[in-house]
Amino acid sequence: MALITFTTDFGTKDHFVGAVKGAIYTELPEATIVDITHEITPFNITETAYVVKNAYKSFPKGTIHIIGVDSELSIRNKHIAIFLDDHYFICPDNGVISMIASEIQPTKIVEINIHNHIESSFPVLDVFVKVAGFIARGGKLDVVGKEIQSYKKMIEIQPKVNQERNTIIGGIVYIDNYGNVISNISKKIFTEIGKDRAFKITARRYTFDKVFHQYNEIVDFSVEDIRQYDGNKLALFNSANYLEIAIYRSNLKTVGGASTLLGLRYRDRITIEFFDEVNPDFTPI
Amino acid sequence: MALITFTTDFGTKDHFVGAVKGAIYTELPEATIVDITHEITPFNITETAYVVKNAYKSFPKGTIHIIGVDSELSIRNKHIAIFLDDHYFICPDNGVISMIASEIQPTKIVEINIHNHIESSFPVLDVFVKVAGFIARGGKLDVVGKEIQSYKKMIEIQPKVNQERNTIIGGIVYIDNYGNVISNISKKIFTEIGKDRAFKITARRYTFDKVFHQYNEIVDFSVEDIRQYDGNKLALFNSANYLEIAIYRSNLKTVGGASTLLGLRYRDRITIEFFDEVNPDFTPI
Amino acid sequence: MALITFTTDFGTKDHFVGAVKGAIYTELPEATIVDITHEITPFNITETAYVVKNAYKSFPKGTIHIIGVDSELSIRNKHIAIFLDDHYFICPDNGVISMIASEIQPTKIVEINIHNHIESSFPVLDVFVKVAGFIARGGKLDVVGKEIQSYKKMIEIQPKVNQERNTIIGGIVYIDNYGNVISNISKKIFTEIGKDRAFKITARRYTFDKVFHQYNEIVDFSVEDIRQYDGNKLALFNSANYLEIAIYRSNLKTVGGASTLLGLRYRDRITIEFFDEVNPDFTPI
Repeated sequence: MALITFTTDFGTKDHFVGAVKGAIYTELPEATIVDITHEITPFNITETAYVVKNAYKSFPKGTIHIIGVDSELSIRNKHIAIFLDDHYFICPDNGVISMIASEIQPTKIVEINIHNHIESSFPVLDVFVKVAGFIARGGKLDVVGKEIQSYKKMIEIQPKVNQERNTIIGGIVYIDNYGNVISNISKKIFTEIGKDRAFKITARRYTFDKVFHQYNEIVDFSVEDIRQYDGNKLALFNSANYLEIAIYRSNLKTVGGASTLLGLRYRDRITIEFFDEVNPDFTPI
Repeated sequence: MALITFTTDFGTKDHFVGAVKGAIYTELPEATIVDITHEITPFNITETAYVVKNAYKSFPKGTIHIIGVDSELSIRNKHIAIFLDDHYFICPDNGVISMIASEIQPTKIVEINIHNHIESSFPVLDVFVKVAGFIARGGKLDVVGKEIQSYKKMIEIQPKVNQERNTIIGGIVYIDNYGNVISNISKKIFTEIGKDRAFKITARRYTFDKVFHQYNEIVDFSVEDIRQYDGNKLALFNSANYLEIAIYRSNLKTVGGASTLLGLRYRDRITIEFFDEVNPDFTPI
Repeated sequence: MALITFTTDFGTKDHFVGAVKGAIYTELPEATIVDITHEITPFNITETAYVVKNAYKSFPKGTIHIIGVDSELSIRNKHIAIFLDDHYFICPDNGVISMIASEIQPTKIVEINIHNHIESSFPVLDVFVKVAGFIARGGKLDVVGKEIQSYKKMIEIQPKVNQERNTIIGGIVYIDNYGNVISNISKKIFTEIGKDRAFKITARRYTFDKVFHQYNEIVDFSVEDIRQYDGNKLALFNSANYLEIAIYRSNLKTVGGASTLLGLRYRDRITIEFFDEVNPDFTPI
């Protein structure tokens, strides 16, 4: 039974998503299709990578991931199929895979060339589904394309560390459903550079000297009315292990979230300064 | 084959929903997963209960319902698994189950205690999925937790009946996709208290002396152009058997719905007065 | 294994969609259910037809399509089941099927009459699901209704050709997720009337003398920075083979799309004039 995930910027109102699923069931009647999201901001590759990177790992090995964002074929935007971390990805070669796989070497990459036989103005439906069908039936990637050694790299979004190794400068790469803003600063780089030193995180005019691991760590549960903590801001490593600035129990539709209340936006800078001597005002995590 | 429903406030853009589904398919490759909704207003337990209560009953007995709203574990917010009305529910003990099950006694409740072995900042993925897998494979609730006798109660949203039993005061608990506003006054309490008496329903400055059972009961189909009825307001018992104030063929994006046109909001009061003598101006239903 | 698609204006927040799926799984435990969309503008039949028409064809023959838009039963709005183009449709007789099937003759149409046994204020759940279950188990349409010869026609949205056959006047029938506006002018009628003549397409105060088949045909890929083409307007035949006015790499949430930037709306007129002599200023497609 093939397990296929599906990530696009198609939205969920138009016929696009339904049509592609129909094509998958025609090709693979027993497939299980899982929507990751269809609400990627149109053509936004950074967002796509963030979502897919944090979703794919919980799927079983061998899952096929179709990514239909900015997928119109051109001489600058080939289609590729990749076997990476024991998962298959079918996507345009627009840099998205370099952000999904930043630390993992793909086992195999092919440039899809079955287009020669398929004229299409809707390649996700006409081409990606055929490739998925082929992989699901146990075919080798070589049959749908010719092996290539590299893919387009997008590296602009890595955090930078200064020479003295006491400052990390990162950026906001994603804003989630609660308005929480997520940086490209991983717990890994934070720990490697920080080495238990005291620190100050700055996002616009807001600073934080603690990083939590759960939202409710800011709550003192011995207090009667814990609702007084609603709306408090905090920094934490989220479940994807990235540094996130959050508002406790936020709601973008009513009271607002970190993005609206703190005025933080996509690509804004997040800075972490580490202190050589332990500063008594700052508590290490 | 396990049938699992999934209700959250995660939204459908982020990786959260996809990641949890991946974990379910890893745990239970043959599962069927049905999204109830992921668009609960963040942390809104009343809304969650309204939606789940009206959805779960049409599923087959034995269905497992995962509810991921306000599910961060704390000493005030335990995780529970419940067997109730022949369905399984896995959810935080935040009052949601008391509103889903207001008239039904659970067969069994356990406080989930497998957290001891699982450190998690994403308990729906790490804990609820494990519990669902366990139940789906035929396990007993005792193995995932220790039996408890009660759960947190939220009772604030029950309608009130006065001593003379001629007035019901309820409130708006939900506003649906069409802008129709739904009260917590059930057809059952209306019938029990009303006993065929004439009545007047008041919602802000609007009154109603009839309750319909279909929206188009307000239409006179002998008229040529029935579009003249579009935009008319009415009270009816909806398909969930709750009193609803509606606009006939409303559209929140264009002409508006009951919520916007009548200025009715979540938690607004709905009053029903019953008349001791049949009032000729009011027609009983 | 029954394959069932589901299209409604229910939205994805309320319990409606989940409840219907629960009823389908109760009726047909092995069914595969595919959401086409639940975000049809409330009661909008034209939109429903556009989406279903462009989605259903990629599904396998024998697929059952449930359409729950404007489905409240009345003497003016019967429920029908249709076998058409080797697919089954269960829907209200409100004109939607005439727009889906404008060029295809149904094999069989029945007016559903199992309502006699089912009292319902939610016919999609109570009636359509029963009919789908019946069809999926191999039943004949005659058992769920009595055969009828025709259904309600909605023909207002066909493009018009003038007597001289040098002008097509069509209208905008749909605006997609990218803000691209889609007309009711098919590639077929364009080719039949145009016969390779030069032409001018007019949409409000904008004109186009070319029609592309891919969005990126407007891009000169020999140029270094191809982002300069972002935001350019173009006319193309989309993947559904209808004339579409688009903005290259548009985004309704940021820079805008054809609908917002060109001020084009649902039902606006799109005119194509063909020139008797080949006009050197205009290049035929």
